[in-house]
Amino acid sequence: MKKSLIALAALATLSGAALAQSSVTIYGRLDASVGSNKAGAPGVAKSVSQLESGLLSTSRLGFRGTEDLGGGMKAIFQLEGELKVDDGTAAGFSFNRMSIVGLQAGFGTIKLGRHDTSFDDIRDISVSSNLWDSEFSPTKVAYVNSVGGVAVAHVADYSSRASNQIRYESPSFGGFTAGVSYGFDEQAAPVKRDVTALNVRYRAGGLDAGIGYQEQDNEVAASKREYTTIAGAYNFGMFRVSGGYNKAEQGTLESTGYTIGANMPVDAWDFSVGYATNKSELAGVTSAKSSGFSAGATYSLSKRTRVYAAFLNGKAENAAGTKIADRKLYAVGVRHDF
Amino acid sequence: MKKSLIALAALATLSGAALAQSSVTIYGRLDASVGSNKAGAPGVAKSVSQLESGLLSTSRLGFRGTEDLGGGMKAIFQLEGELKVDDGTAAGFSFNRMSIVGLQAGFGTIKLGRHDTSFDDIRDISVSSNLWDSEFSPTKVAYVNSVGGVAVAHVADYSSRASNQIRYESPSFGGFTAGVSYGFDEQAAPVKRDVTALNVRYRAGGLDAGIGYQEQDNEVAASKREYTTIAGAYNFGMFRVSGGYNKAEQGTLESTGYTIGANMPVDAWDFSVGYATNKSELAGVTSAKSSGFSAGATYSLSKRTRVYAAFLNGKAENAAGTKIADRKLYAVGVRHDF
Amino acid sequence: MKKSLIALAALATLSGAALAQSSVTIYGRLDASVGSNKAGAPGVAKSVSQLESGLLSTSRLGFRGTEDLGGGMKAIFQLEGELKVDDGTAAGFSFNRMSIVGLQAGFGTIKLGRHDTSFDDIRDISVSSNLWDSEFSPTKVAYVNSVGGVAVAHVADYSSRASNQIRYESPSFGGFTAGVSYGFDEQAAPVKRDVTALNVRYRAGGLDAGIGYQEQDNEVAASKREYTTIAGAYNFGMFRVSGGYNKAEQGTLESTGYTIGANMPVDAWDFSVGYATNKSELAGVTSAKSSGFSAGATYSLSKRTRVYAAFLNGKAENAAGTKIADRKLYAVGVRHDF
Repeated sequence: MKKSLIALAALATLSGAALAQSSVTIYGRLDASVGSNKAGAPGVAKSVSQLESGLLSTSRLGFRGTEDLGGGMKAIFQLEGELKVDDGTAAGFSFNRMSIVGLQAGFGTIKLGRHDTSFDDIRDISVSSNLWDSEFSPTKVAYVNSVGGVAVAHVADYSSRASNQIRYESPSFGGFTAGVSYGFDEQAAPVKRDVTALNVRYRAGGLDAGIGYQEQDNEVAASKREYTTIAGAYNFGMFRVSGGYNKAEQGTLESTGYTIGANMPVDAWDFSVGYATNKSELAGVTSAKSSGFSAGATYSLSKRTRVYAAFLNGKAENAAGTKIADRKLYAVGVRHDF
Repeated sequence: MKKSLIALAALATLSGAALAQSSVTIYGRLDASVGSNKAGAPGVAKSVSQLESGLLSTSRLGFRGTEDLGGGMKAIFQLEGELKVDDGTAAGFSFNRMSIVGLQAGFGTIKLGRHDTSFDDIRDISVSSNLWDSEFSPTKVAYVNSVGGVAVAHVADYSSRASNQIRYESPSFGGFTAGVSYGFDEQAAPVKRDVTALNVRYRAGGLDAGIGYQEQDNEVAASKREYTTIAGAYNFGMFRVSGGYNKAEQGTLESTGYTIGANMPVDAWDFSVGYATNKSELAGVTSAKSSGFSAGATYSLSKRTRVYAAFLNGKAENAAGTKIADRKLYAVGVRHDF
Repeated sequence: MKKSLIALAALATLSGAALAQSSVTIYGRLDASVGSNKAGAPGVAKSVSQLESGLLSTSRLGFRGTEDLGGGMKAIFQLEGELKVDDGTAAGFSFNRMSIVGLQAGFGTIKLGRHDTSFDDIRDISVSSNLWDSEFSPTKVAYVNSVGGVAVAHVADYSSRASNQIRYESPSFGGFTAGVSYGFDEQAAPVKRDVTALNVRYRAGGLDAGIGYQEQDNEVAASKREYTTIAGAYNFGMFRVSGGYNKAEQGTLESTGYTIGANMPVDAWDFSVGYATNKSELAGVTSAKSSGFSAGATYSLSKRTRVYAAFLNGKAENAAGTKIADRKLYAVGVRHDF
């Protein structure tokens, strides 16, 4: 006992530098795959063979840490940037995914900086598994209402992140949590760009469900956009199902969509399927419909490394039922966390 | 004794990776605040609510290390980049704050790369505390001679950093040190851009005082600028006072300014006030006057984390005494080091 | 024995954070020098004094790691970016040198992402020592066929890296290895940009020799370029000699070059010399000739830090024997690894 104490003292001295360093954790995720991609107007769009980054999950590099301030309070920070492993981030690395500093205590968590909105937390529930976290999400496809030069009236998808945000996350009250985020405008008048979001969420046992709302002031008053989502997931142990309802409004334009998905782990495997559909209306008249389906399987080589194969098929039609957008994506890849 | 040696040997083996890694230290500082900012021509400028980065100190991420070369010599390096925690560095991360490699020995320190100029070392003395290290510096405000489209003849502020620099810092001789930095031109003739700076500094007990000179060759001969500063600070223990004299010359243009500040730590608090004034003359005739005042308080939650509130008020007038620029800044924020 | 085991257990607990972190290694190399550079058309080009980054080796910062997956398989990743220590990377930091994720096992190594081509591996053999790894390489000079506004028909140098690559490296079979890399096109038709490369290499004792081929589809069919190289080096212990033959073809244009070099370590010193020559022909008629010579010495202050002095002299002539390009480079510098 005493001996190990001596050793501990020696250790504390020797590895001081390394231990001090532990206040910063470097982490990341790299996801590369080989496959083909077709996206664009029907008949025009061609399949392109590609090595692609982030089809399963966005490739990223980050730095994070916490400091115990005593009395149950912590200082936290996180800097996380997207990178494309296929070309080494052509556009210059920045902390565009997350860049926050904040405080955590009994009252909850306050974060200042660039971060997901509170609305985005709820949208993530309807994501069925790791497969839906990125380009294979049929939701993304279901929003494709303008491709190949053929524009269709629709509401653009919501901003999942905002800069200049204050974000509050409550502690859990019997499974219930609430969140609110506000991203400052900071633009010269009369243009406004602030982003406000709210959520309420319930988590208990296998259930995870919530409701979220987001309002984006964009450029001019007429283009203010509102988003509402209700999402839920239930983990039966053997498999997990999830679904969501999404509504987007902008003046007389309205888009309504549904997503449904399931995934099943079998030993080191995880099998997933997902479907999403979306309908846009201009002053009550349908302007566009879109839908997407995806399926995939991942195989874990370790906790940090998995290989995968996945497939996505999506399309969009105009009011006349003519196909205006076509998307097909195939890939086999490897994802590695560090 | 012997036991701990065994432990040390084991330690050296086991944590070799971590210890080897200690040659690189990752560090940073994140500073985010909520407040309002007004800057521009009087009557036109409006207060804008904002979440801002770096009002107390510039947010940064860096990598640094030293290697002991034996015989009292060390190799050193440091890479430090500014980032904006409010939007995750919109413009792409680079090592724009510091990027050097060098050698340290009995003869002093030689650094090659991008770094503060030797002149900037002296200017920093007149900075009263952490509050004056960034946007709350009244000095910055005092230099604001052209805002909101109303231009006034004045000498632009000095460059605190230069690329392509050789920088030498002498060891201390009874409290005295000297420094010199030279940033190469590297431009196609006849444009010149080299930056030369010198300083002499005395530090003993509570006293820190120095004189600095910087010459910037800018674009054409007529726009060569010269800067001189004398600055001093005295720490009485209970509080610290500091002041500086600054002169900038460019042909027949001349700007002269003074700064004064004080800060007082009380337990975990640190209270600061500062004032700066500046006058520009064109061929001996006053062309503009400006001044700024700031006050603030920081509260340390730990050695690495502090919260703060601060206020800045500045203005500039033209020769006729008409206010041409207005600046008001309020903020409450948190700063976290890692 | 038992005591050290106790210590080990304690160690494992205490330094867990640091050891876990060891999955990511941060590394880098910074190279800064002072000297002069002349490059351009004869009579017009002037010597420019400069502080320069990466004359001995490119300055870089990287993150890498491996994960043991069991059964002899490993997951690997590496992210490495070039930076200029003289100005802190003006253009924004990105992982432009290497950005890969992959798997290693008995069958060899597969890497996905941005990486050197397989051809480049062989070209590196003809690099005589650390001195030829960057700007002091006479090969670079020998390719200078268009400088100072005087264009001469020649084949542009090969791309040493490609994005969107699959790269395979075989295990060694009695000293023999083979490699192949393919960088996807991913461009809209009819432009093609894929890069295919192959190599075979033999390493045994002091010998290192190989052959490489690379085909670059560039923009239009007429500009497809093919590169062939044969390179070898022999390390006699006292010194190392190396040489290479390089051929580049593009339609009726053909460039042929040779390089030769030697380096000799003496205690902490390493002395190097190198020479390269290149000739371009358009439809069989000589259009340009160029050559370069360099010499240098490095002195190791430690395994990780060396100082150096180097010199490069190169020129290019047109078909009439008129000098059209002039290059002279002098530098003394320091290179530090971390």
